[in-house]
Amino acid sequence: MAEQERAVRTRRTILLAAAKVFQERGYKAATIAEILSEAAVTKGALYFHFSSKEDLAQEVISSQNQDFTVPDCPSKVQEVVDAVLLHTHHLRTDPMVRAAVRLAMDQLADGLDRGAAFVRWNEIVQERLEKAQAQGELLPHIIPAETAGVIVGTYAGIQSMSQALSDYQDLTPRVNALLRHLLPSIVIPSVLASVDMSENRTLKLHNQLTAQPA
Amino acid sequence: MAEQERAVRTRRTILLAAAKVFQERGYKAATIAEILSEAAVTKGALYFHFSSKEDLAQEVISSQNQDFTVPDCPSKVQEVVDAVLLHTHHLRTDPMVRAAVRLAMDQLADGLDRGAAFVRWNEIVQERLEKAQAQGELLPHIIPAETAGVIVGTYAGIQSMSQALSDYQDLTPRVNALLRHLLPSIVIPSVLASVDMSENRTLKLHNQLTAQPA
Repeated sequence: MAEQERAVRTRRTILLAAAKVFQERGYKAATIAEILSEAAVTKGALYFHFSSKEDLAQEVISSQNQDFTVPDCPSKVQEVVDAVLLHTHHLRTDPMVRAAVRLAMDQLADGLDRGAAFVRWNEIVQERLEKAQAQGELLPHIIPAETAGVIVGTYAGIQSMSQALSDYQDLTPRVNALLRHLLPSIVIPSVLASVDMSENRTLKLHNQLTAQPA
Repeated sequence: MAEQERAVRTRRTILLAAAKVFQERGYKAATIAEILSEAAVTKGALYFHFSSKEDLAQEVISSQNQDFTVPDCPSKVQEVVDAVLLHTHHLRTDPMVRAAVRLAMDQLADGLDRGAAFVRWNEIVQERLEKAQAQGELLPHIIPAETAGVIVGTYAGIQSMSQALSDYQDLTPRVNALLRHLLPSIVIPSVLASVDMSENRTLKLHNQLTAQPA
């Protein structure tokens, strides 16, 4: 195994361990010592890759960013829906994404820039809504900056409610209901009629993205 | 001061202290000792009113229930909007309500029945939506149980995003945007046209409720 490949693996091991510790203990209570013990690496290895607990947490939060990459679509509204479907899939299946969301929603994580996760999602959604607007997909009164905030904030709440009530078992139907309640106020009817928010769409997206070379 | 009145005050003092400690330390890290010290009461007084840390937390969470009481309205959709406006007002001004929401959103509060807060809100909203449906205020495809889940979950997320980004400074415009995005998919146009979600409505509600004898 090449040295670079080994470094990538070690980095990933440490991040997964950090995600687990943050998930179980919360940001404030988690310690570097616990993360070291969980990852079974040396202090030197950890500090080679990450400068602090905060740095580790921000990297865990950024791990969701994979979901911003969705395949190009003629409809930019479909791309927003695809990002939501893909994130929903990962929230149900990927412990790193769960830990990322838990950190971003942790109102106790004072030292952490929790807003950064919201801001990043907001930018991505807003950018796609602006493109959707430019090509006539949105209703005339929509202000992309405002609507992006509504989409990101509401999705954050729906996932939190699903986590509290069913540990994400009912996440898929809740997210589907969210999209059906929001989209009619955002997009023109002819676009709405062809938006695909089915589970098949999620599977297709997932297969398409995992089939590509990393 | 009558003995009963003194007991009511002591109970309130302990709850406010518990709210403050939960807010600052999170549910898991908070201790009864810290709450005693903050409230400046004896252990005996605390255990006379509350059986455990969990009991205290559940009582703090229930303190939001005041917002379920809104004046009767011909439009039941307006009553749902009123409950949201009133809770938004309290979230900006009442430390007990802030602590209640923080506890309900605390994904680390394992021993706590966090779902209870979501379930209670859900019931209240669903009940009002069923009444709204019976008197023809809702679009024909609406299922009150599903739509109640969307309203409660999305509101939870909008408040969380506002807390993270501006410590609730931008809460009012974000909640207003939420209502403008959701209601057109839920209520018939003629009802939508007369729903009042202005800041004036909030002030009127607040004055009406605080003017009444407790």
